[in-house]
Amino acid sequence: MTTINSVKVHDVRFPTAAAGDGSDSINKGDYSATYVELTTDGPHTGTGFTFTNGRGNEITCAAVRALAHHVEGKNLGELFDVNALRSLTADVQLRWLGPEKGVIQMATGAILNAVWDLRAKVEGKPMWQLLAELPTAELVAAIDFRHIDDALTPEDAAAILDKGRVGLEDRLAQLRSDGFPSYTTSVGWLGYPDDKVRALTREAYAQGWRAMKMKVGGPIEDDVRRARIIRDEIGPDALLMMDANQIWGVGESIDNMARLAEFDPYWIEEPTHPDDILGHARIQQAVAPIRVATGEVAANRVIFKQLLQADAIRVMQIDSCRVAGVPEVLAELLLAAKFGVPVCPHSGGVGLCELVQHLAIFDYLRVGTSLDGRMVEYVDHLHEHFTDPVRTRNGRYLVPEAPGYSSDLKAESIAEYSFPDGPVWQ
Amino acid sequence: MTTINSVKVHDVRFPTAAAGDGSDSINKGDYSATYVELTTDGPHTGTGFTFTNGRGNEITCAAVRALAHHVEGKNLGELFDVNALRSLTADVQLRWLGPEKGVIQMATGAILNAVWDLRAKVEGKPMWQLLAELPTAELVAAIDFRHIDDALTPEDAAAILDKGRVGLEDRLAQLRSDGFPSYTTSVGWLGYPDDKVRALTREAYAQGWRAMKMKVGGPIEDDVRRARIIRDEIGPDALLMMDANQIWGVGESIDNMARLAEFDPYWIEEPTHPDDILGHARIQQAVAPIRVATGEVAANRVIFKQLLQADAIRVMQIDSCRVAGVPEVLAELLLAAKFGVPVCPHSGGVGLCELVQHLAIFDYLRVGTSLDGRMVEYVDHLHEHFTDPVRTRNGRYLVPEAPGYSSDLKAESIAEYSFPDGPVWQ
Repeated sequence: MTTINSVKVHDVRFPTAAAGDGSDSINKGDYSATYVELTTDGPHTGTGFTFTNGRGNEITCAAVRALAHHVEGKNLGELFDVNALRSLTADVQLRWLGPEKGVIQMATGAILNAVWDLRAKVEGKPMWQLLAELPTAELVAAIDFRHIDDALTPEDAAAILDKGRVGLEDRLAQLRSDGFPSYTTSVGWLGYPDDKVRALTREAYAQGWRAMKMKVGGPIEDDVRRARIIRDEIGPDALLMMDANQIWGVGESIDNMARLAEFDPYWIEEPTHPDDILGHARIQQAVAPIRVATGEVAANRVIFKQLLQADAIRVMQIDSCRVAGVPEVLAELLLAAKFGVPVCPHSGGVGLCELVQHLAIFDYLRVGTSLDGRMVEYVDHLHEHFTDPVRTRNGRYLVPEAPGYSSDLKAESIAEYSFPDGPVWQ
Repeated sequence: MTTINSVKVHDVRFPTAAAGDGSDSINKGDYSATYVELTTDGPHTGTGFTFTNGRGNEITCAAVRALAHHVEGKNLGELFDVNALRSLTADVQLRWLGPEKGVIQMATGAILNAVWDLRAKVEGKPMWQLLAELPTAELVAAIDFRHIDDALTPEDAAAILDKGRVGLEDRLAQLRSDGFPSYTTSVGWLGYPDDKVRALTREAYAQGWRAMKMKVGGPIEDDVRRARIIRDEIGPDALLMMDANQIWGVGESIDNMARLAEFDPYWIEEPTHPDDILGHARIQQAVAPIRVATGEVAANRVIFKQLLQADAIRVMQIDSCRVAGVPEVLAELLLAAKFGVPVCPHSGGVGLCELVQHLAIFDYLRVGTSLDGRMVEYVDHLHEHFTDPVRTRNGRYLVPEAPGYSSDLKAESIAEYSFPDGPVWQ
């Protein structure tokens, strides 16, 4: 039995804002990680993180410290059922700061991702394999069904997971041969001038990408002009996704998508406020057959539940570390499967690609069991800081094989980019 | 012109958990304040706070420090339009930690409450009067209509506020004579034994209270027994409200209220997860004519908008410092008026009574313009630490008359209860 001795947290920040990388209609940040290390009495260190956008990373670090006592001193084996999850999410004092949303939920995610990473390392399996091989009862026991059981019961979840065993080996062989489909967001950040957008689009197409995402939400004429550039470059058959990063109102979303429809967008992502279930539902009705996609900042499983119940999204974008880590993502994947909506994980940032590839593969192997409409976002930033970085070929993710959640930052990167004392910040 | 020199923040905690005060089905806390002081170049200090439940108060304090630069060095006059509000709520890096929810929104509330308190002090008016006398255009300019304009436009808001001028003096005279209706939550905390519940209920009734709230969400037989005690004591005519503090699922809420209906509850508060718009709507349809009430942890105006659009609540409970302070509360009061739903503010904690009395009075004077179904929660805790504490008579709040938002803590209370260095924590 492995025991967790301590929870260490590092405030790691990469100075990306100056280059315009990752800029969109509402964010312009220094990609950062609230990076957790679980030291143990064994040979392994569990690592996990939540992604933040620069300033404020010290706040999520403080939240990790406030929650640390829920796992410190515990045997690893005690930390995988719903009671362990609730000891963090329903802490009788800290819950007030959410509940189950924002800083406190992100910190919970960082810790629980590290707990699950530790288990995967102890068992010598990559995260997708750990999850795919777990008995149905263990997966179900890890999920908090409170507040979602009007949409997904433990029995529903068990039925999906049992069914997912059929054909699993074939799906895995296919993934190992072909990789997992993905799309790139590196071509159309709002901070990039038109020439750079055209050059990056051409380059990405040449590299094999057939699905690309652009940011919208600037002046509509600019969005139209940039959409035309990208559609010109990629031709009529490749997929073009658009992402408004929440900037529009409900009516505005509908009006602007009427303007942008001529470029045949595959989805409109985050058209409006992420809490607005009813607004997304109205937009989805109005813009169909264009799909509404959202979820990267959806606070928790209760928001996803409602987006699905209201037919407000036709693409569900989970995030690996905004919610309460692996166990809450399990609930979200199962909700999506129950409602028949494809999951296309949010990625980018720091290390999100590294994490979500495991979730997408597990989803395909055991939950959603289809690649139809499934793509993992890919952004070509900051992979060099990870010991087990994502690998892509022809616009597809290759299956990661190292034990764990691919979440280990290199020690020298932690040292170099630690805020405020690392050399890069001096 | 007053200039804000600095933002100071104090981590103030009162050791209430040990006594069971404030205990309910999910919270057991040390009532705390993330207490902000704005020092200026003039004679006044602006004060504001957000309420937290003990551990984690250092996290909201860190968030205040992260946001402080948005008001430090600014002239007070610049801080009351929507651009000033958005400089905090749409900070291009910090917004990622919400958006507009949880820790970062609560810290925004603490700062903006202090900004508005400062203005009220400069103008020599209690907050309710400052708000009630502001020109319609100034109130409208303070509100962020982004993401709510599908339910409330600036024109809608202006019409409500203009209409609210009619009869305002009469309503004020009536309040000064009779006070504002309230109800008490001090009788039925879950941590109290039956004898204490009975004794406190009897005492409250004798003091003139005719509306009382009990906590539910323990074992249902316990809830039934405690409801019977209270209903026995107060007779059939007084109002009995119930508060589940989010513990139930959707179906469970409906089932449990079927059991509790025999005690004629006036409302069921927070039956389920506060993010669950669709769940509240289903519960409201099922339990009517019992009203569903919620809002004390509703993250922002977008959640309130949807609760109203979905007919999910028939009592709206605003909170004074969970959202982005006075300007976001203005939006919420106007949304409630637009949909014809009465506002009964959440209170209790540290200083919430002190703040919400101003909001309720302003609502009556200028927005909702009715007392029908309106009550402010009253909890008899911790008022002694404020320089301008609430005053009640026969179960009604008396109109506060001192300049400001009644948010000043006594200097000796700050010193005594500062965490972790104050004497009470040593």
